[in-house]
Amino acid sequence: VYLTADIASEDLALVTDAIGGMRTLIVTTPTVAHLHGKQIFSALRQQGEDVSLLVLNCTERNKTMEQVERVCAEALRLGLDRRAVLLAMGGGVVTDIVTISASWIRRGITTIRIPTTLIGQVDAAVGIKGAVNFQGRKSYLGCFYAPASVFIDPSRLSTLPDQHVRDGLAEIIKIALVRDSHLFDLVERYSGPVRESRFAQPDDVGREIIWRSVLRMLEELESNIFEDQTYMRLVDMGHTFSPALEAATGFTLSHGEAVAIDIALTCAVAACLGSMTAHDRDRVIAAIQEVGLPLNHAALTPDLCRRALGEATRHRGGALNLPLPAAIGEATFLRKLADLPASVLSESLQWLQARSVAGSAGRATPAVSSAVHAGA
Amino acid sequence: VYLTADIASEDLALVTDAIGGMRTLIVTTPTVAHLHGKQIFSALRQQGEDVSLLVLNCTERNKTMEQVERVCAEALRLGLDRRAVLLAMGGGVVTDIVTISASWIRRGITTIRIPTTLIGQVDAAVGIKGAVNFQGRKSYLGCFYAPASVFIDPSRLSTLPDQHVRDGLAEIIKIALVRDSHLFDLVERYSGPVRESRFAQPDDVGREIIWRSVLRMLEELESNIFEDQTYMRLVDMGHTFSPALEAATGFTLSHGEAVAIDIALTCAVAACLGSMTAHDRDRVIAAIQEVGLPLNHAALTPDLCRRALGEATRHRGGALNLPLPAAIGEATFLRKLADLPASVLSESLQWLQARSVAGSAGRATPAVSSAVHAGA
Repeated sequence: VYLTADIASEDLALVTDAIGGMRTLIVTTPTVAHLHGKQIFSALRQQGEDVSLLVLNCTERNKTMEQVERVCAEALRLGLDRRAVLLAMGGGVVTDIVTISASWIRRGITTIRIPTTLIGQVDAAVGIKGAVNFQGRKSYLGCFYAPASVFIDPSRLSTLPDQHVRDGLAEIIKIALVRDSHLFDLVERYSGPVRESRFAQPDDVGREIIWRSVLRMLEELESNIFEDQTYMRLVDMGHTFSPALEAATGFTLSHGEAVAIDIALTCAVAACLGSMTAHDRDRVIAAIQEVGLPLNHAALTPDLCRRALGEATRHRGGALNLPLPAAIGEATFLRKLADLPASVLSESLQWLQARSVAGSAGRATPAVSSAVHAGA
Repeated sequence: VYLTADIASEDLALVTDAIGGMRTLIVTTPTVAHLHGKQIFSALRQQGEDVSLLVLNCTERNKTMEQVERVCAEALRLGLDRRAVLLAMGGGVVTDIVTISASWIRRGITTIRIPTTLIGQVDAAVGIKGAVNFQGRKSYLGCFYAPASVFIDPSRLSTLPDQHVRDGLAEIIKIALVRDSHLFDLVERYSGPVRESRFAQPDDVGREIIWRSVLRMLEELESNIFEDQTYMRLVDMGHTFSPALEAATGFTLSHGEAVAIDIALTCAVAACLGSMTAHDRDRVIAAIQEVGLPLNHAALTPDLCRRALGEATRHRGGALNLPLPAAIGEATFLRKLADLPASVLSESLQWLQARSVAGSAGRATPAVSSAVHAGA
């Protein structure tokens, strides 16, 4: 994983080194092709690289086998063999499709990632998992397959819509909360200008926030890369209630918004159980609000939470393993479902409800209030 | 990898241990379902296992993504999740399709293999590769994915057609020639009764031949399991000219027959170059004939050989790396294409042609002469 300056110009050599003269197929989406893909494609062509470009109209909803087969068919048409590169340029959906395609073609060809969304840079592009939906079941088919190189170029974020910036900040708050109090301080202090400037200002703080997030994610994933070593994963923070919440809202709530709400609820639970101080909880709540992310949603009912906890338990080897903040930058685990009494959950939900209403009345950004109203 | 007695009865417990109470889908072909699948399915059911059976009409020619998707769809329909088993029962085609499906479902579920062909038991079931054809290109998509257990039950071979027995013996001769002179002695001495009795007679010789072949294969694959360590692979013996030969005959020549011809030609080359004595070469030739395998085919022209050598060089990292017998049970490598002069190749082809005609006139089994005539 490299933190780069502009990869279409001064750091282009890093990309050509990674390609190593192999035939390369760049896979991207229409928007990213327009903003970045064609520029980087042309720059590589001018360097004499044997590159082609495939623009896939892929979204979270049509992240299916058909898209993977389209990439494989194009690779076959271009004669890509064992020594060849698939380069993913875009967000998590393109990364997923390319990771799977690269792992399947000739039992595995080289793959390179250039994430162009914030969530892609700090989260999705760092792991080795790829998955697609199959016959309506989310992420039923997939693989573990490591990219050869990941280039993180924060200058690519300059054109990112605010919604995407907020989504990425939710993942940054997640990893800061469980692993890195200094990163949390940076987000707390600078999220305003960083969000406004798309991580270009102030100075190197934007780059430092991204890079620390990446390093902490890598450290967390490293020892459990195939997810077969432990079900106690700090990176599951914010990902216990959020899948059910996203689904319940028919995905009108973005992933980052759902993660933020999940983090807020988990902090409320942690404070209620005495694992975290009310002061630290309030710092997290304030940071989420400052970023323009919601704290609550009408679909977040006790019923939905119970179902989500059951689902998480199934996915985590039969135990709850809920990451529970102990302080800013530190977390433990709530191991068993029985460790979370129904009274604690309902009290936490009520507290969140009250705080969220107070927040939206007092200081909400438009984004917060619209998310709350959407579910009201 | 386990060498078992009858897994439908006395060694059934080994299979239930491997399943470990997980929901299991057995994938097999119509013929194997009839001969073995239903019997083992019923035996597992009686033990209270949660098993289902999927009968796929799959052959080498329709070993495609569609078959993999059928397995994945059935797995989804049955609710197979991370803790679940796909059990392949049959030959190499079923093993390939199941290996890939298991690696894709939920990024990898448990897979167990019960090979029911000789080639499956001594060769295909031992590796970790799976591949399917894609849009007409052989083995374009695939994976490396290790089975949790492989059960080798020689009693399953009792119903095997003679053609399949001969095909398997070609792979056994291959591994014996490059790695195990004692195994070669056993084949030389007992191939008649072993072939006749489907490895049941004499006594334990049949089982010993299978098990030594498996062990030698495992040893060879172990250090290069992802094929990224070296292109000098002894198991490539018999697999240099045979792919082109199979294709040139429109697959009327079986894989084993093509491998036998490839081995015969390679021994002729080795003797011509002085790597192997004429005596050892003649032992190999005699063993191939004794098994009822052909030595030659009209499609084996100098032109086809040159194309095959070029193709092998492309697949072996740009160097020929042809396994070359040095004695029975020992081999070296012909590293570069230039080490094999055209004159040596044409002389070897002529020698093989003469020997094959002499053989088929003097002592051919019907199988040998039909294979020679098919191409004549």
